[in-house]
Amino acid sequence: MLSDGQGGKQVVGDRIMEGSQNRYNQRGVSSSKEEVHRVVDRMDRGLFPGAFCKITPDALTGRDDFCNVIHSDGAGTKSILGYLWYRETGDASVFKGIAQDSLVMNLDDLACVGSWERVMISSTVNRNARNFPADALAALIEGTEEFLQSLRDLGISVLSGGGETADVGDLTGTVAVDSCAVAVMERDRVIDNSRVCPGLAIVGLSSSGQASYEKIENSGIGSNGLTSARHELLSKHYFKQYPETYDSKTPEEYIYCGPYRMADPLPGSSLSVGQALLSPTRTYLPVAKAMAEELGDQLKGLVHCSGGGQTKCMRFGTGVHHIKDNLFVPPPLFAEIQKASGTTNEEMHQVYNMGHRLEAYCPPEHTDRVIEISKSFGIDAQVVGQTEASLRPDQANHVTIRRDGVELTYG
Amino acid sequence: MLSDGQGGKQVVGDRIMEGSQNRYNQRGVSSSKEEVHRVVDRMDRGLFPGAFCKITPDALTGRDDFCNVIHSDGAGTKSILGYLWYRETGDASVFKGIAQDSLVMNLDDLACVGSWERVMISSTVNRNARNFPADALAALIEGTEEFLQSLRDLGISVLSGGGETADVGDLTGTVAVDSCAVAVMERDRVIDNSRVCPGLAIVGLSSSGQASYEKIENSGIGSNGLTSARHELLSKHYFKQYPETYDSKTPEEYIYCGPYRMADPLPGSSLSVGQALLSPTRTYLPVAKAMAEELGDQLKGLVHCSGGGQTKCMRFGTGVHHIKDNLFVPPPLFAEIQKASGTTNEEMHQVYNMGHRLEAYCPPEHTDRVIEISKSFGIDAQVVGQTEASLRPDQANHVTIRRDGVELTYG
Repeated sequence: MLSDGQGGKQVVGDRIMEGSQNRYNQRGVSSSKEEVHRVVDRMDRGLFPGAFCKITPDALTGRDDFCNVIHSDGAGTKSILGYLWYRETGDASVFKGIAQDSLVMNLDDLACVGSWERVMISSTVNRNARNFPADALAALIEGTEEFLQSLRDLGISVLSGGGETADVGDLTGTVAVDSCAVAVMERDRVIDNSRVCPGLAIVGLSSSGQASYEKIENSGIGSNGLTSARHELLSKHYFKQYPETYDSKTPEEYIYCGPYRMADPLPGSSLSVGQALLSPTRTYLPVAKAMAEELGDQLKGLVHCSGGGQTKCMRFGTGVHHIKDNLFVPPPLFAEIQKASGTTNEEMHQVYNMGHRLEAYCPPEHTDRVIEISKSFGIDAQVVGQTEASLRPDQANHVTIRRDGVELTYG
Repeated sequence: MLSDGQGGKQVVGDRIMEGSQNRYNQRGVSSSKEEVHRVVDRMDRGLFPGAFCKITPDALTGRDDFCNVIHSDGAGTKSILGYLWYRETGDASVFKGIAQDSLVMNLDDLACVGSWERVMISSTVNRNARNFPADALAALIEGTEEFLQSLRDLGISVLSGGGETADVGDLTGTVAVDSCAVAVMERDRVIDNSRVCPGLAIVGLSSSGQASYEKIENSGIGSNGLTSARHELLSKHYFKQYPETYDSKTPEEYIYCGPYRMADPLPGSSLSVGQALLSPTRTYLPVAKAMAEELGDQLKGLVHCSGGGQTKCMRFGTGVHHIKDNLFVPPPLFAEIQKASGTTNEEMHQVYNMGHRLEAYCPPEHTDRVIEISKSFGIDAQVVGQTEASLRPDQANHVTIRRDGVELTYG
């Protein structure tokens, strides 16, 4: 039932320390999502089982040389941060960013299979009408239209076909924003990550800074790990003021146990803590499109480092040891989340992108060009690592991250 | 942003009595959804502005003679009833019905534009992992597959392309189940409700009983009005036991203020109160398809009486006075909801289907055949009314319901 990376959000590996696991469970979040995988893994994985998204035969138009991709995801609990911002400042326009989060969590997954033409999208807003009123809803809807227009201005054709707003005050105290994206595409244009093999370079595209098509600096955050980030960074002020923003069954010690108010400056950044947490998820669509058009078959794979962070790649490729030994310095927000929460390096890389949210796999001779293309959009890029042959007896994929003299291993 | 009937769920007219409006507002539900319409009504209404769903040019494959429909809706708060059942009985299979609810709320809207071929669907489950565990999730996923297989057995091709399960314990105490359906269809096959005109018969297709393709008796409930029905029918037992199932800001007097436990027998029915409330939303897809294939152009319109109930039709047709003077006797569940809540007749018909959830508009000479087709699927049907010319100076549509010597007017 999961389409996100043929897996799911918040899959944070199988080896999260017991203490952290407990913090997840206490917040109504399943830490390993193993139970979800047990159900989902029995299901058909589609035409390209190694691709980033599930791709099905072309049920929509019945043509043998085409295929379909239909994909659901949303802003997750980032909407709660939008809600807190809105309540504290009265500024409903924050929900324009939440609309973007929900869209990009779908569109950037689609980008990883090479789908950026003729995409249709529909959104669902499940709201508590008491707490999430009309001006906030209007901002969500306007944000959707504005973001899609900005993509069209970049030559990316994504159209909204409508959506649904449901008043479900007993289901949520705030608002949940989800989207579904669908495309019909030629089978021979699919980027099939099963082609990721030993001997490739991994180019990371920075998640922070300001892309040429972004209006303000991006903190690097996506829409993953925000339940933890919110509670670990924000202070008890929010506990007292906004009980509608947390699960009443969560023990108090795990709720808003951080040092900050949203307006406080984020150390090492020009953004406030709230701005950094709410930084709209960057889309890499224009860059992915440009890379694929130029590299063609030499682009062997694209991975959206969403749920699973820097270990998400482990699910892609065949007989591969993913080695990442030249990662970006983590943007200030991730450093602060780690500091406030005391999370291990190992886990931080399983939950957050830690510096790049898109990575491209290609033969080493093409990395200069990939980096140039990314930089032409104002997005920093560098070779963050390479693939080698799996060291496992069963040839299973595994990941090694080397940073600051420390080696982290996964799988 | 709304796609459901080019409107939205829980649109219950503009004239709900102040007392009832208060009961909605107290439960975090907007009673009239006017504020939503103010936003949505500014948006493009697509190729067929009078059709039941928004229909766009064929963005997905770019063909002039085709069009697209993409549609989002879900089980709403019916999932909370599933949750209560599951908690009280341990029976996770109840969520198979919730999966059906979420699918049918989309598919039966699509049916009203003539779309039942080559439909793709994706679902989103937003859950509290603490309260909604793996066996319940598995039932949702299995229920989706089983229901789609049952449609394929009836010659209706709907395929699931995957979905998303998000652990969002701070967004919901239980579970929200939503789906998105998309189709590419020939423009000349669209059922365009703008062709509903004076001089037609309205045939209602019963929402209760047992269709030939249903395994058990259906209470007639859809997935609308379930927040009210749940609180008005169920007793304070649920208030004490399951605080995760209601908005903590709702005053206690409006929470589970009814007389029943779920296992109690529903007066006048062989079903228990819980079974009746949880009765999976009937799909009319096979019947709609058979009617459209036989009547062709003589089928002037189809209306899914979801949000808006028996007044939903008001939005469809041109210069029409919808007169309903021969409605089905309301099934026992609706009678009991009305009795427990003290809701007026006027409002009951604005929220619930009250006996038929699909209505077909056709010239009077075809009604016998429409009724025969419905009955061939084991679904009772009758002429429930007719259309006449609007009596309004501006030719606006309006609705008159006559039942038991009482006349209800809307619009």
